[in-house]
Amino acid sequence: MLVRPQMGENVGAAARAMWNFGLQRMRLVDPRDGWPNPRAVAMASGAGRVLDAAQVHGDLTGAIGDCTFVYATTARPRDLTKTVFTPEAAAQDMARRIAEGERVAILFGPERAGLENEDVARANAIISVDVNPEFPSLNLAQCVLLVGYEWRRATHEAPAVREEMAGTQKASALEMDHLARHFEERLTEAGFFFPDHKAESMKLSLRNLWSRMPLTGQDVQTLHGILRQMVRWARRRDD
Amino acid sequence: MLVRPQMGENVGAAARAMWNFGLQRMRLVDPRDGWPNPRAVAMASGAGRVLDAAQVHGDLTGAIGDCTFVYATTARPRDLTKTVFTPEAAAQDMARRIAEGERVAILFGPERAGLENEDVARANAIISVDVNPEFPSLNLAQCVLLVGYEWRRATHEAPAVREEMAGTQKASALEMDHLARHFEERLTEAGFFFPDHKAESMKLSLRNLWSRMPLTGQDVQTLHGILRQMVRWARRRDD
Repeated sequence: MLVRPQMGENVGAAARAMWNFGLQRMRLVDPRDGWPNPRAVAMASGAGRVLDAAQVHGDLTGAIGDCTFVYATTARPRDLTKTVFTPEAAAQDMARRIAEGERVAILFGPERAGLENEDVARANAIISVDVNPEFPSLNLAQCVLLVGYEWRRATHEAPAVREEMAGTQKASALEMDHLARHFEERLTEAGFFFPDHKAESMKLSLRNLWSRMPLTGQDVQTLHGILRQMVRWARRRDD
Repeated sequence: MLVRPQMGENVGAAARAMWNFGLQRMRLVDPRDGWPNPRAVAMASGAGRVLDAAQVHGDLTGAIGDCTFVYATTARPRDLTKTVFTPEAAAQDMARRIAEGERVAILFGPERAGLENEDVARANAIISVDVNPEFPSLNLAQCVLLVGYEWRRATHEAPAVREEMAGTQKASALEMDHLARHFEERLTEAGFFFPDHKAESMKLSLRNLWSRMPLTGQDVQTLHGILRQMVRWARRRDD
């Protein structure tokens, strides 16, 4: 919910930021340059549907009328007693409330100075982004982006870490063993394990090196190929 | 590290996004419009120091030369076998590596099409933001913003939820008890607890209502004042 937004471009950028994270119910409270606004449309490009569906209200009372819980985004502390959430905690709180049938809204203030204390007092809680105190200026669309990002994180479980595999599987222990033996045999032949009394510990280190590498079956084939080619080359030179 | 950035404005916006979250070591690889770039400076405004200190390199090899671990940001899957982190997991991974003395870098691609596969293959891991698949277009500065945000989250423990108190303390249990009694007495006098056989459960409900409210000492004084004034008013009308 954008409260008294000023520039149409910023309304458009906020619509993009919402739609990046799948949010589409925008409400506008008393937009300075009227509505609809062609500059907002130009800026929103692929997120025009958010603007098309936007509700416009003359005042905040009307805009939040059907909501049961309202969050106000603000950077600076206010002289108001209120719970302050990080975006992450707020998104989790929202998800829980929505699951329980609540209707929630998030207020974003005008570009210049943010929400008035009067607006913040109408909200049930505050969302505040922890920024560099030397440079705390987040613009409207950035603030919408961060809250949208946390909303998606709270509602779409994405694996924190995953392995992208290019059409191949992780190498099996058997494949790894064959690879290690292949290298050990050829390197023995090549006189790599020298001097003799260090050979065992060198072999152990090499085994350990292989096992630390997250190789795919394809990688293993590539390494076999490299080794075979080196051997071929070495034997040719021996002739 | 911005790889082949195109518009100076976007370099400036990326500098702002970095500095919002306290990051200041920017490197530029082969910026299309040369360097320094006045459009970047105009856009960066308060984050000009990031641009002033930016290192410029002719190619990626030189830019990442002193780094021990490199993350590539990319939205679309590549035909490369590589670990993919969410921004959150990546930031935690970075913080750990840096604590262990590593030098890490994050690659952001050119605005138009992002990093080339060749660039991504040079990186040790991928960072990918989970976005709305119907509208996955994050711009350069937005991507920098989200990674910077997660970097700050990983390194500056901010309390998820805190209570902002406007110069007052939470009400003590004793204050709450006095308040509840005060209301109970006056409401009894006013004939509120009616009919008689429901009086006990009504009192219990009211007690419970008070205990659910997160009142401050100041709030309690306000409520006492309201009640006293109502009583005064009622007695005047009784006269």
